[in-house]
Order: sequence, then C-alpha cells, then structure tokens
Amino acid sequence: METVALDDLTFDERGLIPAVVQDAENGDVLMVGWMNRESLDRTFDEKRTVFWSRSRQELWRKGDTSGHVQHVEEIRVDCDGDVLLVRVHQVGAACHTGERSCFFRIFSSTTDRRSEGV
Amino acid sequence: METVALDDLTFDERGLIPAVVQDAENGDVLMVGWMNRESLDRTFDEKRTVFWSRSRQELWRKGDTSGHVQHVEEIRVDCDGDVLLVRVHQVGAACHTGERSCFFRIFSSTTDRRSEGV
Repeated sequence: METVALDDLTFDERGLIPAVVQDAENGDVLMVGWMNRESLDRTFDEKRTVFWSRSRQELWRKGDTSGHVQHVEEIRVDCDGDVLLVRVHQVGAACHTGERSCFFRIFSSTTDRRSEGV
Repeated sequence: METVALDDLTFDERGLIPAVVQDAENGDVLMVGWMNRESLDRTFDEKRTVFWSRSRQELWRKGDTSGHVQHVEEIRVDCDGDVLLVRVHQVGAACHTGERSCFFRIFSSTTDRRSEGV
C-alpha cells in the first residue's frame, strides 16, 4: 500500500485535520475527532489515539479519563491528503454518552415540519 | 433510533458539516465530503449524495459526471450534531482516482526520516 508522510498531509487553516475513527473489528464508524501535527505524531508513536480538543484547545489522549482507550491498528489517508481514517481496537464505548459509537442518532430532515406548515 | 432535524445540527463558520460516507454493504469508509444546508436537504430528498465543493464553491451531485452515484440508505448524526455519517450503496468507485475508497494510502509518519537524521 502506498505510504504518506506527515509533510504530505494538508492541515486546515487552524492546523487541524479530521480523523474518522473506525472499529477495526466490525467496520463501525465510532467517532470523528480532530488532530494537529503533534496529536497525529503521538497517535502514531504511542499507537493510541490522541486528539486536539477544539473546545478546550488542548491535546487529549482518548481513554485517559474514561478508560475507553483506542488501540491503533493503522492510519489511512485519503486521496487528497486532508482526511485521516484511524482503524482501532476500541475498549468499551467510543462515545462520552456511553454508546459504543457516536453515530447513534438518525437524520430526519425538516421535511415533516415544512409539510406541517411550521 | 432517536431522530435529529436540520435545525439541531451545528454547521461550522463556513456553513459546512463533514459527511463521512460509508458503504452500507460492507462497512468500508469510502470518502469524506462536506455539506451545507442545501446539499444535505437535497441528499435527503433525492436519496443521492450532494456535496458542497470547497474548491469550486458550488454544489456537486456525486455521479452526475462519473456515473458513480451514491444511493443513500440512511444519514446518521453524531452525539454533538456536528458530523454526518451517510450510509450508501455505491455504484462503481467512490474515489476520483478510480479506487473504490479514497482511503487507499497508509500513513507512515516522519519517524523514519527523523531517525535518518533528515
């Protein structure tokens, strides 16, 4: 498989790149986090996910508080070099709500409300 | 499953939300695109993915040129309401390179180069 180095990635104007986290065992998409160069470097070196918290403006290593560690199997890069796909072995729940995946809700649009004249 | 409406989503300062596109048949992550309110509305109504092109600053309906249509099975929303997961039935290749998934490359970090003293 073709390899990509840090310098080949495109970080956005905040210095961030989105990281889709996928369960390596069953393919479920667990969450999407953001990484900067340092968090990606640490994720690669420690083989555990480390993200950049946009709200707290600091690094956070997933599982340090919750115990819900993500052990990294591999990190893939998309064709444009501006999105990461991190395949992990998830301990416990990926979501802070306790759900295994953050994507436990379904989009229903506003069509119903419009048709009701709201 | 809990439902989420358009008004409950958080779009970024550009009016965009990232959309992870997943193959509904085998769980592969195919690509990540960006949507604004209009493209999400059209995706929901037409049951085909419509994205916002950040480079061209226009809507693009996936497959109109390539034939590689994404038929939408469902749209999920993450716990924060700021990422979409679009589960699709993909016709042909999702990636413009001809690869089925955009994530056909692997991240190798810069560790090798550092250890070589570069």
